[in-house]
Amino acid sequence: MNVAQKLICDHLVSGEMNPGDEIGLRIDQTLTQDATGTMVMLELEAMDLVRAQTDVSVQYVDHNLLQADARNPDDHLFLRSAAQRFGLWYSKPGNGVSHPTHQQRFGRPGATMAGSDSHTCAAGAIGMLSIGVGGLEVAMAIAGEPLYLRMPEIWGVRLTGELPAWVSAKDVILEMLRRHGVKGGVGRIIEYHGPGLAGLSAMDRHVIANMGAELGATTSVFPSDDAVRTFLRGEGREEDWTEILADEDATYDVEDEIELSTLVPLIAKPSSPGNVVPVSEVAGEPVSQVVLGSSANPGLRDFAIVAEIVRDHQSEAELSFDVNPSSRQILEDLTKGGWLFDLIKAGARIHQSGCMGCIGMGQAPATGRNSLRTMPRNFPGRSGTREDAVWLCSPETLAAAALTGKITDPRELPDLLDIDYPKLQLPDSSSVNTAMLESPLPEDEAQRVELVKGPNISGLPELDELPDHIEAPVGLKVGDNVSTDEILPAGARVLPYRSNIEKISEFTFAQVDEEYAERVAALKDGTGHLVVGGENYGQGSSREHAVIAPRYLGLRVVIAKSFARIHWQNLANFGILALEFTEAGDYDDVEQGDTLALDGVRDAVAQGDRMQAKNERSGKTYELRHRLSPRQVAMVLAGGQIPLLRDA
Amino acid sequence: MNVAQKLICDHLVSGEMNPGDEIGLRIDQTLTQDATGTMVMLELEAMDLVRAQTDVSVQYVDHNLLQADARNPDDHLFLRSAAQRFGLWYSKPGNGVSHPTHQQRFGRPGATMAGSDSHTCAAGAIGMLSIGVGGLEVAMAIAGEPLYLRMPEIWGVRLTGELPAWVSAKDVILEMLRRHGVKGGVGRIIEYHGPGLAGLSAMDRHVIANMGAELGATTSVFPSDDAVRTFLRGEGREEDWTEILADEDATYDVEDEIELSTLVPLIAKPSSPGNVVPVSEVAGEPVSQVVLGSSANPGLRDFAIVAEIVRDHQSEAELSFDVNPSSRQILEDLTKGGWLFDLIKAGARIHQSGCMGCIGMGQAPATGRNSLRTMPRNFPGRSGTREDAVWLCSPETLAAAALTGKITDPRELPDLLDIDYPKLQLPDSSSVNTAMLESPLPEDEAQRVELVKGPNISGLPELDELPDHIEAPVGLKVGDNVSTDEILPAGARVLPYRSNIEKISEFTFAQVDEEYAERVAALKDGTGHLVVGGENYGQGSSREHAVIAPRYLGLRVVIAKSFARIHWQNLANFGILALEFTEAGDYDDVEQGDTLALDGVRDAVAQGDRMQAKNERSGKTYELRHRLSPRQVAMVLAGGQIPLLRDA
Repeated sequence: MNVAQKLICDHLVSGEMNPGDEIGLRIDQTLTQDATGTMVMLELEAMDLVRAQTDVSVQYVDHNLLQADARNPDDHLFLRSAAQRFGLWYSKPGNGVSHPTHQQRFGRPGATMAGSDSHTCAAGAIGMLSIGVGGLEVAMAIAGEPLYLRMPEIWGVRLTGELPAWVSAKDVILEMLRRHGVKGGVGRIIEYHGPGLAGLSAMDRHVIANMGAELGATTSVFPSDDAVRTFLRGEGREEDWTEILADEDATYDVEDEIELSTLVPLIAKPSSPGNVVPVSEVAGEPVSQVVLGSSANPGLRDFAIVAEIVRDHQSEAELSFDVNPSSRQILEDLTKGGWLFDLIKAGARIHQSGCMGCIGMGQAPATGRNSLRTMPRNFPGRSGTREDAVWLCSPETLAAAALTGKITDPRELPDLLDIDYPKLQLPDSSSVNTAMLESPLPEDEAQRVELVKGPNISGLPELDELPDHIEAPVGLKVGDNVSTDEILPAGARVLPYRSNIEKISEFTFAQVDEEYAERVAALKDGTGHLVVGGENYGQGSSREHAVIAPRYLGLRVVIAKSFARIHWQNLANFGILALEFTEAGDYDDVEQGDTLALDGVRDAVAQGDRMQAKNERSGKTYELRHRLSPRQVAMVLAGGQIPLLRDA
Repeated sequence: MNVAQKLICDHLVSGEMNPGDEIGLRIDQTLTQDATGTMVMLELEAMDLVRAQTDVSVQYVDHNLLQADARNPDDHLFLRSAAQRFGLWYSKPGNGVSHPTHQQRFGRPGATMAGSDSHTCAAGAIGMLSIGVGGLEVAMAIAGEPLYLRMPEIWGVRLTGELPAWVSAKDVILEMLRRHGVKGGVGRIIEYHGPGLAGLSAMDRHVIANMGAELGATTSVFPSDDAVRTFLRGEGREEDWTEILADEDATYDVEDEIELSTLVPLIAKPSSPGNVVPVSEVAGEPVSQVVLGSSANPGLRDFAIVAEIVRDHQSEAELSFDVNPSSRQILEDLTKGGWLFDLIKAGARIHQSGCMGCIGMGQAPATGRNSLRTMPRNFPGRSGTREDAVWLCSPETLAAAALTGKITDPRELPDLLDIDYPKLQLPDSSSVNTAMLESPLPEDEAQRVELVKGPNISGLPELDELPDHIEAPVGLKVGDNVSTDEILPAGARVLPYRSNIEKISEFTFAQVDEEYAERVAALKDGTGHLVVGGENYGQGSSREHAVIAPRYLGLRVVIAKSFARIHWQNLANFGILALEFTEAGDYDDVEQGDTLALDGVRDAVAQGDRMQAKNERSGKTYELRHRLSPRQVAMVLAGGQIPLLRDA
């Protein structure tokens, strides 16, 4: 077996390991962050959970750190009280970004993890099977229920050779995106193997595994080898290491190979992580901002390499050089190693540890100016600036732009500025510091904790069952690859409402159509409405708000050419019927505002996978299909997982 | 002569040094920050300024650093282009808070300065005469015009003795506020003298001078003595030092004395800097957040003392421990000295260098929870949280709360936690680094610079002349000590609109009455409206938006019991007539919504200082008085300084 199969096999509680079949997995660990976590905690409350049933469940606070008003700090207090109440770990604001922090403090080779963040897959770096899912599925996992998903294909990517100077792990995942685009990983687990792994540390692998999310993959996995052992030793946790390697005769459903020595610095152009080209092709473009950090380049190495490149130089005059340390622990290491000093001296704005600009929490670029970031995503508007121009690149490429004020192939730095590629000497051990991680309370104490709910923290909306007859207008028609950032934006303006569905629903699809929310809200208590989408509908973040908010506004059915995995699951979890066109051409026939009629919906969903929708304007009838498992069918009929649980 | 008189005498271009008389002063330096500076730059543009006429004019960017969308970074680019165009220095975002940075890099004993920030007075720490005024007055000063003000009384405060352990400069100014309240300094310059000065460094004096603004003082001054020389030497600028001492026989209009050894740790309770009590009196109150930083405690010493107190301890679990370094320079020093490491290790969230939470740019406290801050102001809602509870204290008191989670007299720390008062060893020299300060462009190059205006940067509103007959409703009646934070809030939501008067006007008085803006906007093109206030109307920040925004909404007259200095000048600058009740009882007769009629206003303003207003509801007639100088009368009649310049 390969590594992915071993991990699945070890945790399989239902189904068969045949690609496409629904399987159930036992979940050892969970991860929630604050932007999705408040909803998860409200779900645990609605489920009357007594205590978390997992080995480790951690509630991180890393997204909503700006605190423009009381809503974010109120959420933090709520999350802390909920963590105490349900027996979770709590990672305080300022402790760091969930993914690298989790890998450093809790990650364990061989374990499974479900996380309400699409980059949960990063933990695959150390031989975990770690999957980003909707909040409700994490809530179920915390309650001890299995995680259900369709058995993915295993995609073996064999790495050979060594990375050249000025090229790093980020360029490996950008190469994957250059080759395969944002849908290349759909329905697959990417397993990296081969002799090229020897040159990649556990944190380099984190970079690669993290942005597997951008390929649409279910997750990515690496073996747990000596590099993982070295990493865990440095974190004072060598005892958590176990070796997990693919069998010598392991095979993969799909195969691919990257010869690392042939890679060049790559960059994703605005506004998709899939728009990858060699840096040299776009060199010379003026740059107004660079932002270093996020879960996509979170390791000490990623900051230290930039620090050594810019050491004794100054960032370009007009440019804003923003640095977001991944965690307090890494900030301590950066301080000890003198790298923080180098960054400050070169003109960096050192921000608090957290996701920050990656999630649009500040650091928005100026109108029409290029921003280069080591982050994982550059979907339109995600930065906070309406017509933004965000590029994704490696720390090396970022450093070159910081010094020149232009997109610059970092391999030019020796000639341009007499800078050699730094030979980093990283410490063997991290500055382990767990004082901002609160451990779960003992059970008797936990039972007495009251949830602390500020005035902005509301409950879940009522979810009624799926109607049998739906005759409703198409409230919105969108194109391919619409991301959850476009369905329900993040950012400093919207994220503070993550605990308040009524209020946050006003921002639904605001990036795409500012009038959508008001238009469909008028139909909320009447016919409701439908949304029509193209390919890969709902890619990106795992936020279930992108489902709960439009559901609150009366969305009952989404018809698309195809769906992104997490969003598709979220739709089912909250009782929205996700249908696919069987004839791609029918997509072109629908116009926004058309009324579609679907008859006998409940029977059709329950008894087969086909149904029809009639377009009252064009007179045309569309053949539609769902891909729901019987488990999901029950959920959708009931109006969602929560009413289903309540009725049980 | 005393120091204040010497400084005034050296710069006097008109008037006599008799308290109450209008004097004109030659201005050597100016300071603008981004929240007020965009308007100043638009004013310079409206004035067709060719080039700054001052010795030193610096445009800082320290307020609007969050960048939730493109508005803030667009402002930064605009300010940079304007600084280049008009021959100003430009301090980049991340370089630091204006006041300490100015003192470190540009402050010169004996110089005058006008700044569009109420804490400009901080520079009095090194023997400058430095006055916070409205933006338009700074624009005039940049253009080489004198600054006009009423000659203040000079208030000599003799300091004797030495501060005890756990008591620091912040407690000196809190003692002043305890004794005299937020109006105690109105119409006065506070001059500190006496043997107690010997124990106060230039940065300690900055703490005291800075919060002179909270006493309502015109400014504060200290002599330029050996402590100032030592400070300038440490900044590599000893050549800028000149000795400026009061003559031995100098006298003061008012006298006061503080024996430093008798001081105890003090704290200002919510929600006024004047609510000062000993810390011991409120000890035990739970604390949810502490925030270290701002221009009120900006020195290396203020951070280092906290670092040494919390070293090897951990901040309390629930509490958020926020640290805002004052500047890149101080952050470099904190890093070099190991203090930053101590702070990080103790659980601090290290934010970018700047004003941050002090101006409501993030760091809002949770609903109903106490926040202790080393900042200068705690006016209601300034933190961003509607019903906030912000307390102002010294770094020592803050550190004690950080460790205990409760308001704690820091003198208890030896007993409580076995912590001795640290004996600080500060470096002799600062990490001088000017790379984020761009010097003025040569004149020929400057002339070719185009202003970079993002879509949010609009011009000044049209300002029509003062009508002769005003018959308009009282759009709002407010009580005593209404601050400019209540007239026009700052904070993350509102500050990004500082370049857009139409949009920002929607927030006018929103803290006090959410419906005000909409209510009076309806009268904008008709009768306009009046506002009635109590004592000390318009205290606090120098923001001229608190005048321009209501003027845009049709405000023509404010009638109050008394006015705060800067706001009163701003009203005249923008053609709003500021009138005082001669009978305090008349204030009680007016009700919000009453229509007041003022006849023959233009002649009354021009020819005397009295006029009458008839209340159409009560039938009562009020005797009103203005205190405008002939120069200001001309301005108000013309509709403001800008129409006056334009007509000239």
